[in-house]
Amino acid sequence: MQELKNHLKKLSKFESALSLLHWDMETYMPPNAVEKRAQIIGEISGYVFEQFISEKTQELIEKAQPNDVESQAILRLVKKEYERMKKIPKELFVELQIETSKAQQAWQNAKKEKDFNLFKPNLKKVVELEKKVIEVLGYEENKYDTLLDQYEPGLKTKQLNEIIPPLRSFLVEFLENLSQGKQPNTEILEGEYDETLQKRFSEELLKALNYDFNSGRLDVSAHPFTISISHNDVRITTRFDRFDIKNSIFSTIHECGHALYELGIPEEYRELPIGDGASMGIHESQSRFWENIVGRSFEFWKFMYPKFVKYFPRFEKIDIKDFWRAINKVERSLIRTEADEVTYNLHIMIRFEIEEALINDRINVDELPLIWNEKMKEYLGISPKNDSEGVLQDVHWAHGSFGYFPSYMLGNLYAAQIFKQMKKDIPDFYQKVENGEFKPILNWLREKIHSKGKVYQPMELIKMVTGETLNPQYFIDYVSEKYKEVYML
Amino acid sequence: MQELKNHLKKLSKFESALSLLHWDMETYMPPNAVEKRAQIIGEISGYVFEQFISEKTQELIEKAQPNDVESQAILRLVKKEYERMKKIPKELFVELQIETSKAQQAWQNAKKEKDFNLFKPNLKKVVELEKKVIEVLGYEENKYDTLLDQYEPGLKTKQLNEIIPPLRSFLVEFLENLSQGKQPNTEILEGEYDETLQKRFSEELLKALNYDFNSGRLDVSAHPFTISISHNDVRITTRFDRFDIKNSIFSTIHECGHALYELGIPEEYRELPIGDGASMGIHESQSRFWENIVGRSFEFWKFMYPKFVKYFPRFEKIDIKDFWRAINKVERSLIRTEADEVTYNLHIMIRFEIEEALINDRINVDELPLIWNEKMKEYLGISPKNDSEGVLQDVHWAHGSFGYFPSYMLGNLYAAQIFKQMKKDIPDFYQKVENGEFKPILNWLREKIHSKGKVYQPMELIKMVTGETLNPQYFIDYVSEKYKEVYML
Repeated sequence: MQELKNHLKKLSKFESALSLLHWDMETYMPPNAVEKRAQIIGEISGYVFEQFISEKTQELIEKAQPNDVESQAILRLVKKEYERMKKIPKELFVELQIETSKAQQAWQNAKKEKDFNLFKPNLKKVVELEKKVIEVLGYEENKYDTLLDQYEPGLKTKQLNEIIPPLRSFLVEFLENLSQGKQPNTEILEGEYDETLQKRFSEELLKALNYDFNSGRLDVSAHPFTISISHNDVRITTRFDRFDIKNSIFSTIHECGHALYELGIPEEYRELPIGDGASMGIHESQSRFWENIVGRSFEFWKFMYPKFVKYFPRFEKIDIKDFWRAINKVERSLIRTEADEVTYNLHIMIRFEIEEALINDRINVDELPLIWNEKMKEYLGISPKNDSEGVLQDVHWAHGSFGYFPSYMLGNLYAAQIFKQMKKDIPDFYQKVENGEFKPILNWLREKIHSKGKVYQPMELIKMVTGETLNPQYFIDYVSEKYKEVYML
Repeated sequence: MQELKNHLKKLSKFESALSLLHWDMETYMPPNAVEKRAQIIGEISGYVFEQFISEKTQELIEKAQPNDVESQAILRLVKKEYERMKKIPKELFVELQIETSKAQQAWQNAKKEKDFNLFKPNLKKVVELEKKVIEVLGYEENKYDTLLDQYEPGLKTKQLNEIIPPLRSFLVEFLENLSQGKQPNTEILEGEYDETLQKRFSEELLKALNYDFNSGRLDVSAHPFTISISHNDVRITTRFDRFDIKNSIFSTIHECGHALYELGIPEEYRELPIGDGASMGIHESQSRFWENIVGRSFEFWKFMYPKFVKYFPRFEKIDIKDFWRAINKVERSLIRTEADEVTYNLHIMIRFEIEEALINDRINVDELPLIWNEKMKEYLGISPKNDSEGVLQDVHWAHGSFGYFPSYMLGNLYAAQIFKQMKKDIPDFYQKVENGEFKPILNWLREKIHSKGKVYQPMELIKMVTGETLNPQYFIDYVSEKYKEVYML
């Protein structure tokens, strides 16, 4: 077992270098270096891939004698990944890399030109290759399960199909109810926000939430992300929009949630397959927990508002309740990444339904814009004016990341379910938030979730933490209660 | 030949990752990551080393059929390095790594405590290992030649022993003469300089000197350095001292000179042994040329002073000539890195003489502080009050970098010799500098030096560029003329 671990730890050091190469590319790399950087990343990734699918790995897997739960998990994860990699023919793997790379270029252009037709041939190719991948990997019930499993190990399409319809009905109806409530005034947020002050306030947020700047940093990139370079080196990026303070505040807290998770993974799990989040959905539950449940709560702003006002003194005249209602405004909007807590899952459902139908040949790529717009109308009551704010808005399909979107929704659902449990152990949760005492909250998450790394499958973990499997009712309860208050219903 | 090139280019991509890991460590890495970072660097360096000394390299060397001057140079360089690496037993290599790593720790501590005795046992060990390395690598005339050759291929101790005595006599005497001249008033430089303004002025300097920010960046680190991460990615660092503007100005220009050299190396040489500077001395000639010959000239400040005054308006009242004389003050000072153009080489001579005698067993480590202080007294007329400002001031010996110091002096000498030649082709050199027309100057260096990469040995290159081998008289002439003006003699 130790030999297998050493082998994996060795490869992981090359992955650390790759992470740094990526981080640098998104933050500080001089623009002219982009072409060479891609070659460097290609070379080193290729080496890691070759080493991973080498006979040595197979031999070490066969020899390994796991004698504790961690070792068993390592062996299970490495075996699964090894078999997966072995099944995909090299030509298919390379073709997928090339086609998704081309598709990203085409997507960027199509989005700029607001014309789905410019992306269509590339997307067709990517979908075709995704189906080939499913063919070689195999599937039991539903082809889409194979894709889901990459991001949410063990999750089945069937489960999503059980969860989604009642949740959708609730959300569509709830959205209707909210339009009867008192609308928050978002005009109070309008105006300019100096970027240096935004940066300082972001740093203050991170410090308050116990993000350790000795083991991480905050930088700026076009799209916010969190990256784990090594043990004690988990970095965050955010972005600053001069005219939208919400953007940097909630991006920063969101990424902070991801980073706190990564920083809470035990050192001895690091550089091993268990030294990671349990799944994309669980990861997203952590970012959403801090962003929404903590960061958009009234109590959080009771604590942060005086500090916020110091940076942006024009808010002195604005009542904290009005501010809180403004940052929680629910809107029938077109763009997923800008969606609020109530509408967000509806955006995901549209994508899931389209992906699942596409992979199972019940619809085809040509129909996507039409179906997209119809579903938007049906669930959110609005339609995009053009493809850029509709079917072209997300990069995921160009990446070939089919099966990823549900993780975002699961994150919201897991977060609410975890929160319900947390309040049993920390009954004065909101009092703690109001006092800025985030450490006990973080410690609870550390103990129950972060310290487990990727030892357990997400559904197992959720059951261990909350005593039951995924139950969307907690999210429904949370959203109902909170937004009735926001909308004074 | 192509196979050998491909092999080397592949390894070079891992070296790019290593460069980025180093750059990050010195600039942005969170402090807690230091231990893990060392492991990552160790793992990847180990891989590159193993691959380089593999049988594959040997086979490719044997098969290679170079049919142009570049390929011949590649083969010569790779063969030399391969044989060198093969000769050093792995145990010795590892021991040297461990002992120099320990020695650096000890040196830091000894320097802090101002006590050479705390460093002495480590230095003894390092010197002993250096001698073992020379033993296995072999030598002809002088053991020290083997060390010199690592940094200045082809240079012999004998040559240095011919060059140094007359240069030393001149400098010691010239220094005496200057004390008869009118002393520059450096009080005008005293005071505080805002670091943000220093940074902006540094950026303005770099832009003026045609450093391309699309292929590089400026950051801050404890010790300024230039690092070539890949083609089109050559980065500079500098440092800002609130009370010393000279520090950032001349560090920035110095590193800019290194970076312009690296950026001028042809793309097709990149990732190959010829894609580098010809030697440390030639590299230093480029940094010194821009720092001293350009950056400390009166004409340069005629161009830059109005911009400088905009950042630091209190200089409005200060005459440019007084400013120029102040930044060119010659001082009998203790610290090499702070030395001026006249005294700098004397600092180097002391180190060279000590190193050469030490390696050839004419002196021993115990005597170093005494010898150091005596030589300082003899050449510079002053003695350090303690070891920290004397024998302990430089990290080089702790690194095991014996043989490196002469490169600094050679850089000064090469620069003056190159400059003499340049003025034949650009007779209005100083007029161009005064106009801020640095492009023709850079283009001359690009054509004559940068574009040659490491194809030629340094002495060959100097002969190609200037028509003769190294001749320190050009430096003597340059210094005499300039400093007679500074000191109004």
